[in-house]
Amino acid sequence: MSQLSKLYEGKAKILYATEDSENLLAYFKDDATAFNAQKRGTIQGKGEVNCTVSSVLFQYLEERGIPTHYLEQTAPNRMRVRAVKIFPLEVVVRNIAAGSLCKQTNLPLGRPIREPLVEFYYKNDDLGDPLLTRDRILLMELASVGQVEEMVALALQIDRYLTTFFEDCGITLVDFKIEFGLDARGQIRLADEISPDTCRLWDAAESDPQRRVMDKDRFRHDLGQVESTYRALRERVLQAAKIGNSSPSAD
Amino acid sequence: MSQLSKLYEGKAKILYATEDSENLLAYFKDDATAFNAQKRGTIQGKGEVNCTVSSVLFQYLEERGIPTHYLEQTAPNRMRVRAVKIFPLEVVVRNIAAGSLCKQTNLPLGRPIREPLVEFYYKNDDLGDPLLTRDRILLMELASVGQVEEMVALALQIDRYLTTFFEDCGITLVDFKIEFGLDARGQIRLADEISPDTCRLWDAAESDPQRRVMDKDRFRHDLGQVESTYRALRERVLQAAKIGNSSPSAD
Repeated sequence: MSQLSKLYEGKAKILYATEDSENLLAYFKDDATAFNAQKRGTIQGKGEVNCTVSSVLFQYLEERGIPTHYLEQTAPNRMRVRAVKIFPLEVVVRNIAAGSLCKQTNLPLGRPIREPLVEFYYKNDDLGDPLLTRDRILLMELASVGQVEEMVALALQIDRYLTTFFEDCGITLVDFKIEFGLDARGQIRLADEISPDTCRLWDAAESDPQRRVMDKDRFRHDLGQVESTYRALRERVLQAAKIGNSSPSAD
Repeated sequence: MSQLSKLYEGKAKILYATEDSENLLAYFKDDATAFNAQKRGTIQGKGEVNCTVSSVLFQYLEERGIPTHYLEQTAPNRMRVRAVKIFPLEVVVRNIAAGSLCKQTNLPLGRPIREPLVEFYYKNDDLGDPLLTRDRILLMELASVGQVEEMVALALQIDRYLTTFFEDCGITLVDFKIEFGLDARGQIRLADEISPDTCRLWDAAESDPQRRVMDKDRFRHDLGQVESTYRALRERVLQAAKIGNSSPSAD
């Protein structure tokens, strides 16, 4: 990949330009960070797991009408994607209270949220990714009213599809963070990744609050078995995708 | 006041029960705190200034149809108020970017906000009074949809009235924090206080960013002349109220 020019290096991925200006190559790293990069480490094989899980889920969503930046997985840890201009927003969908929501509201961990919560955070490490209200998004000119509404509608659709997909894996989708971007035609597309780095995923068969964790919280809170859990998650996702692919609705 | 029973002691006020269960007596203290009580001090005469300014402004708003908890000022630092059940919400109205808004968004201090921003914060010192979205207010059951809408509408009306009032004082109303409560009949009433402790007020004739400050930011940021500025503010407010009272609309 040395001949490709690096466009952007984030905490978990590197984006390279390709010959086609509308396409990029995303390289998924094993580097892991948490708590706004205050905690750093490596999860062996994470890049391959996250690239594969993201590829499966992007395809699954595309087949159901969600526009994504996904084009193809070209290697276990590489993905060809459409170039999009990312909104500086982290869009979080919550089905069950966890993480910063509990810290900021005193809601108990695990409390079900009847109407899924769609929240926006300002993607800005220096400011610590603060929570945004709709009014602040407009005041800061981070997106238009129509774009915010479209992102909320897409986020709720994505939540419904992913909840079903993960149920078929025996996994509860607690919450997840997604990012959207604008493609060359001005269409909003789901971008970034969908992986155990960006979702809270609980093994539905486990009630123990530590054993059930199948996501980056194992790394965040030093719960151990990080690598093996990431691999197990990939296997469940691939298995569910295989079953899904045999059905007529999914090509 | 020793024979009255203390119901509540906050950072700036003490509330006492009276013979009438629907009324309370509010005693305004000289104690000053800032940054979630990490900074503490005393502003000599602050209780009298804040009680007087609040009394004038509550009357001004009542005359214009805003329901408040105000009944009468019984001494320079004492006010008789209706008993209300306070929503655990700090409602902030912003006309110009300042304070935590700038810290959380990178908007520059002093940037005008065309459509005044009405924001809700969770009144909870342990959590640091975090910003709330409408969805979080509902999820936490801090108020109903209708109550939130009514508070927003009242806050915007109050902003228009106070902006005009302070303009007549030669003062720019930058932002302010208010609290609402429910009275015995279930009506939402403006409560707490409206004072240099709870408003950002800039002398309209001053462009110097330190000299123009006529509010608690003088204490927060050690700008000096705290007491004399509080007294000067009271004089301007009393003067404007006197002129206003000679007009037929106010009485």
